[in-house]
Amino acid sequence: MERKKTRLLHLGAMAVGGLSAITVQSMTNTKTDEIQATIAQIKRLEAVGCDIVRVAVPDMTSAQAIDKIKDGISIPLIADIHFDYRLALEALERGVDGLRLNPGNIGDPDQVAAVVRAAKKKSIPIRIGVNAGSLDKHILAKHGGHPTPEALVESALGHVRLLEKLNFYDIKISLKAHNVPLTIASYRLMSSTVDYPLHLGITEAGTVSSGTIKSAVGIGALLAQGIGDTIRVSLTGDPVEEVKVGNQILKALGLKEYGPTIISCPTCGRCNIDLPSLAAEVEKKLATVHKPIQVAVMGCVVNGPGEAREADIGIAGGKGEGLLFRKGEVICKVPENELLPLLLSEIDKLSEEDN
Amino acid sequence: MERKKTRLLHLGAMAVGGLSAITVQSMTNTKTDEIQATIAQIKRLEAVGCDIVRVAVPDMTSAQAIDKIKDGISIPLIADIHFDYRLALEALERGVDGLRLNPGNIGDPDQVAAVVRAAKKKSIPIRIGVNAGSLDKHILAKHGGHPTPEALVESALGHVRLLEKLNFYDIKISLKAHNVPLTIASYRLMSSTVDYPLHLGITEAGTVSSGTIKSAVGIGALLAQGIGDTIRVSLTGDPVEEVKVGNQILKALGLKEYGPTIISCPTCGRCNIDLPSLAAEVEKKLATVHKPIQVAVMGCVVNGPGEAREADIGIAGGKGEGLLFRKGEVICKVPENELLPLLLSEIDKLSEEDN
Repeated sequence: MERKKTRLLHLGAMAVGGLSAITVQSMTNTKTDEIQATIAQIKRLEAVGCDIVRVAVPDMTSAQAIDKIKDGISIPLIADIHFDYRLALEALERGVDGLRLNPGNIGDPDQVAAVVRAAKKKSIPIRIGVNAGSLDKHILAKHGGHPTPEALVESALGHVRLLEKLNFYDIKISLKAHNVPLTIASYRLMSSTVDYPLHLGITEAGTVSSGTIKSAVGIGALLAQGIGDTIRVSLTGDPVEEVKVGNQILKALGLKEYGPTIISCPTCGRCNIDLPSLAAEVEKKLATVHKPIQVAVMGCVVNGPGEAREADIGIAGGKGEGLLFRKGEVICKVPENELLPLLLSEIDKLSEEDN
Repeated sequence: MERKKTRLLHLGAMAVGGLSAITVQSMTNTKTDEIQATIAQIKRLEAVGCDIVRVAVPDMTSAQAIDKIKDGISIPLIADIHFDYRLALEALERGVDGLRLNPGNIGDPDQVAAVVRAAKKKSIPIRIGVNAGSLDKHILAKHGGHPTPEALVESALGHVRLLEKLNFYDIKISLKAHNVPLTIASYRLMSSTVDYPLHLGITEAGTVSSGTIKSAVGIGALLAQGIGDTIRVSLTGDPVEEVKVGNQILKALGLKEYGPTIISCPTCGRCNIDLPSLAAEVEKKLATVHKPIQVAVMGCVVNGPGEAREADIGIAGGKGEGLLFRKGEVICKVPENELLPLLLSEIDKLSEEDN
């Protein structure tokens, strides 16, 4: 998988773009000016692997909360601002690490210039974020009345040009839609047009159960093509779930280590042990493990060890018994009822070993 | 999204390849010769949108069950066979619609020829299915001891050539691994090499919760590139879940209609109603609806209707109240406590309307 090399930016200590590690973002859904609640939510996001967090800044009390929130958290903080340039200036003053702001929505060129001057002075990147649902009427009209990839890209580039005119280039871009093919096509077009880092996401994807698949397909397809520098999964519900899903997407593509992996076969008419229960128990156990170990739970003795060659530890079911194997090598044969306790104790051993 | 046009095959009445609709497959995990249990499971798979089903045929009683199973089901049936050519002949005799069989594993050229003759006579396609974990030792050795895309493709093409030598071309190919980047690279290479339809899957993806994301990323990335003619999600657990996930992957990419869609925003500090509960209730309701209606549950009144322009029906939250909208047009304003009942009754109306 060859990644497109984009312009390198920094949000606090976190690099975005260049060929730096792809980061996972989320957004709080507390009231930003309820400082303790916002900090508490961000700490929960950090604990599950959130790299960068964004807060809505709809009013001055929210902007004024930024320094206090930053005092309580460890990851870079982005302020999401619409329309009012004073909120951006206040957020910058309070030490925010990034802005999400579409300069075209601020309107007045002097106000845009004031924000850009302040951001530049502090080396704070700005994300241009265009959504399919809120495109300007004149751009929609030009593109047949519907959001198309060309319309999304044109809209985003309009905002980008406003920043470039002011010699500001620390820009990220997002082009979100809840329609996955539209999102994919839009980012592809943008990636072939500019070198700014891209922030990937499917917006309004739905609840955890329905939105996870849409996000995995859309964000995954782009990453697999080498497009994307930072990602945000949008789900209705606890943002902790967004962060977990985002990290699992990166993990699936080998772009991030994120806890242990279970390799388990779908079972078929050849399977002679109760594999689904075994796999479920192993998964429950692995939820408590942080180390990126691989554990295989395979139904058949012929293919099991071979299919799970690189697993740190695994079992392959036989008729009322199973083989324990490490890295594809069979270690011993045990009766079915001893498989689970043996595997669990092996997982304990592995997760306690030093790296 | 431009799809690669592959050779057109038929499994019973179901087309695979060409540019025909991408199908969702699954595999039973009952004992195949427990005929009633197998039929019952397949009926459950059909009910959630399974297009093609596969059963393991590890022995003669399983092969002999095929005609009886076919009598009880409505979708094409594939027999999964390893090593023993007599099982393939029996399955063909009993009216199977497709075979999954690697001719190289049968070995004896006369036995392979006998199977191919019988399959050809009945126009039954054969899938060559290569797994990263069970590659031949000599192929592994040639490719540095590890499964690589080139090794997987070489292994599959070896089997393909055995069929082509016998003038048999009704071939599908799968190249499965639990490593997603390896899977993606292997299918890409195969797609650029041959025109046979490709059966996509990530093998040993894990349980429903961990395997869904891997499958959505891997299968989704390939489909988004125009690669893939039929898909199978492999999850440890009830195969009904595999079929649901497979269909949702196709739906996300606009490749299949599959029930209603909920469009709901992730909420942020700007949201003034309890959107997650509302979205959860709507989702519960939509689980009972088959019609592909779109329902939007959006947090804010400014962007809501615009973002969910094409939704059949939706609400956008305000302060203690919300707007009901249809296709992006605001219909009326209602107090928060009336939003859910109103939306549910609108969903009822929509789902009862004739198409």
